[in-house]
Amino acid sequence: MEMGRVIGSLTATQKDGQLEGLVLRLLQPVDADDCPVGEIVVATDSIGADEGQLVFYVTAYEAVIPLRKQPALTDATIIGIIDSMNIPSDGN
Amino acid sequence: MEMGRVIGSLTATQKDGQLEGLVLRLLQPVDADDCPVGEIVVATDSIGADEGQLVFYVTAYEAVIPLRKQPALTDATIIGIIDSMNIPSDGN
Amino acid sequence: MEMGRVIGSLTATQKDGQLEGLVLRLLQPVDADDCPVGEIVVATDSIGADEGQLVFYVTAYEAVIPLRKQPALTDATIIGIIDSMNIPSDGN
Amino acid sequence: MEMGRVIGSLTATQKDGQLEGLVLRLLQPVDADDCPVGEIVVATDSIGADEGQLVFYVTAYEAVIPLRKQPALTDATIIGIIDSMNIPSDGN
Amino acid sequence: MEMGRVIGSLTATQKDGQLEGLVLRLLQPVDADDCPVGEIVVATDSIGADEGQLVFYVTAYEAVIPLRKQPALTDATIIGIIDSMNIPSDGN
Repeated sequence: MEMGRVIGSLTATQKDGQLEGLVLRLLQPVDADDCPVGEIVVATDSIGADEGQLVFYVTAYEAVIPLRKQPALTDATIIGIIDSMNIPSDGN
Repeated sequence: MEMGRVIGSLTATQKDGQLEGLVLRLLQPVDADDCPVGEIVVATDSIGADEGQLVFYVTAYEAVIPLRKQPALTDATIIGIIDSMNIPSDGN
Repeated sequence: MEMGRVIGSLTATQKDGQLEGLVLRLLQPVDADDCPVGEIVVATDSIGADEGQLVFYVTAYEAVIPLRKQPALTDATIIGIIDSMNIPSDGN
Repeated sequence: MEMGRVIGSLTATQKDGQLEGLVLRLLQPVDADDCPVGEIVVATDSIGADEGQLVFYVTAYEAVIPLRKQPALTDATIIGIIDSMNIPSDGN
Repeated sequence: MEMGRVIGSLTATQKDGQLEGLVLRLLQPVDADDCPVGEIVVATDSIGADEGQLVFYVTAYEAVIPLRKQPALTDATIIGIIDSMNIPSDGN
């Protein structure tokens, strides 16, 4: 899984019917220092993350699992809100 | 999912029979400021996006879902047209 | 899907038995200006592309579909020869 | 598979129910000289790796296999602790 | 598929039980000029490649196929030894 910060959401009137009712979050992937890395991801959300929160998300085929239906039209889903990263100073 | 701008289409007379009848869009992936990032993607389209429109698309295995047949010969499909990105100024 | 130019082929006497009879093409991924981007890909071929031709190819799980057998030992397959890219000047 | 060093773990109270009971490790991918490459990965763990250990991990769909349940909500799982890399001096 | 050179192997006493009996090769991905590109990959091997040999390998889901069991715990497998790359001088 990867870490990202929720920076906003997408509005899309014209979209595939399978996306009806799903929130589309905009995620900025971040590193362990919370610095942006790589490009923004459009993600579905199984836990109700808010804007500004640090989260982790699953990609590819596994992203459909949290939506509790098969098939589900997504390749990235937020699955947890990060309380803290525990990195001992001698761990790196 | 990722965001991209539809910049054109492909013409291909000689192609796998499973692609007959499918429009092949050329997508330039873009970031939140609509700047190009990475290389052009050839994508199928489940919603009828036009050239110049900002869209989001799904990749990998999930790309076959919108085409309503299994198996479907694609690894990238446009699934929505972006009306707006809602990014609060304190969200990043 | 991605675009590439066929630059040659591979000869491999010692290989997995499932590859017997399959042509292994060397593809140089290219951008919309036909400039090389990224590393060479070894791809199977469902349409009989020749060296020098501009093609598009599908990757990952979908690459097995054109070979009409399951499972098929490939993660990249050429599925069409590009006649032209239609990119309106105001489309980018 | 890729190599990484376990640098810590994640604490996440609010997460998808399928993650209950799973340890979420923070992995820094490394090269053959143990130098960091690329961004930190959040991984599940099938073998009980400790912080500071050099491990290898599997990604994408295969990451669900070690967890012995289907479906499993992960796209990266630690599957071995590296004792040594055996690289003959004439092998590169 | 991608090309790589076998530069060594991994020793791992503590690993997932499904890896028992499998050789874990260290692969340096290379380009058409045999120059290193990208990071080292840990791969299983279906053909018995030796250190120093130039090979090609399949990734992701298809990597499990050569191991002749399902599921198989790998996301990269060597499937052929390259005798030669045939690249006509006008092909690029």
